[in-house]
Amino acid sequence: MRISELAAESGVPLPTLKYYLREGLLMPGRSQSRTRADYGPEHLERLRLVRALVEHGGIGIAGARRIIEALDSPPPSRHELLGIAHGALPGSVVEDDAPEPDPSVAAFVERLGWHVEGCAPAIHRLSEAVVRARAAGIELPDADLDRYAAAMRAVAGVDLEVAGRATSAAEAMHTVVVGTVLVDPVLVALRRLAQEAESATRT
Amino acid sequence: MRISELAAESGVPLPTLKYYLREGLLMPGRSQSRTRADYGPEHLERLRLVRALVEHGGIGIAGARRIIEALDSPPPSRHELLGIAHGALPGSVVEDDAPEPDPSVAAFVERLGWHVEGCAPAIHRLSEAVVRARAAGIELPDADLDRYAAAMRAVAGVDLEVAGRATSAAEAMHTVVVGTVLVDPVLVALRRLAQEAESATRT
Repeated sequence: MRISELAAESGVPLPTLKYYLREGLLMPGRSQSRTRADYGPEHLERLRLVRALVEHGGIGIAGARRIIEALDSPPPSRHELLGIAHGALPGSVVEDDAPEPDPSVAAFVERLGWHVEGCAPAIHRLSEAVVRARAAGIELPDADLDRYAAAMRAVAGVDLEVAGRATSAAEAMHTVVVGTVLVDPVLVALRRLAQEAESATRT
Repeated sequence: MRISELAAESGVPLPTLKYYLREGLLMPGRSQSRTRADYGPEHLERLRLVRALVEHGGIGIAGARRIIEALDSPPPSRHELLGIAHGALPGSVVEDDAPEPDPSVAAFVERLGWHVEGCAPAIHRLSEAVVRARAAGIELPDADLDRYAAAMRAVAGVDLEVAGRATSAAEAMHTVVVGTVLVDPVLVALRRLAQEAESATRT
């Protein structure tokens, strides 16, 4: 189909399509002539992904480009894949001048005994989140954090099982990156519902 | 202290302080004369909360005002408190013209058997999140959603226990509203770490 048809079919306005093409988020169409390119179902699929990431995943254009580059050339091992997938996620860049993780958080992660890199960006994000909560008067003693960690370990078990069902590295990568970003709001909504349900049983 | 001292002490610029006063996010100081007001530790505490909500909780000024109004006049029962707290959270407003929740999601929630209102905003948020994930190629079969729900129910158990430790209704309200918003990023970071740990044990 022509680019105007791609716009109509996908619901993405033509200027946005051209912007995505310039930014490398959408691959070029097959060239038919000097002024015409042909677009197919793979372009529609890519557009669904880009919109999901940019419009709903809270990921900027640069982040979406990193994710798409990684999807286009997935690494061989599943664990390596997860590392690259995590690196493409928002919040995965630790600036050179970022403060060290809060010592209490670093000690907590150490004590969990999980196999995680000491420099994992998620430790920085965890530290920032804990420090912010504390500043707003929400103390998170280790006993509570332990139980939150156990629950999220169960979540991760499902995540990895879902990724394990993928039949190709590219599909696994897609599942980890997109699934991680887009399942976060699912979990957040389930937490609200579960709070209501827990509260009802305690009243 | 004077407003200029409050600015220095809190690190919030003077124009921002005046904006917060105008918007009702910061209560007025005690009037000392026609041109001077006195601010105390309660203002510093309030500013910590406002910054946590607005700068890190992703809550706009209107949302922060709803939260603060609710904190200033908490209801009698704990379950009612949670309802008001949830109503003050971002994403809690369901527009009149919002589409009905996706039937598969409504059926899933029904099947969970949790005590939740059929019109709970979180059901709309869950439906939106599931539909967006699907559009991006992430299927969430009920068997997976069930396990995510069980994990988030465990999280909610901790949440309610923490709120139950509060010694006043105002403190419980603070814990539910602020804790819900500011613990979300803690859980998200723990999920990333847990994925890495799970992946390491499976390789």
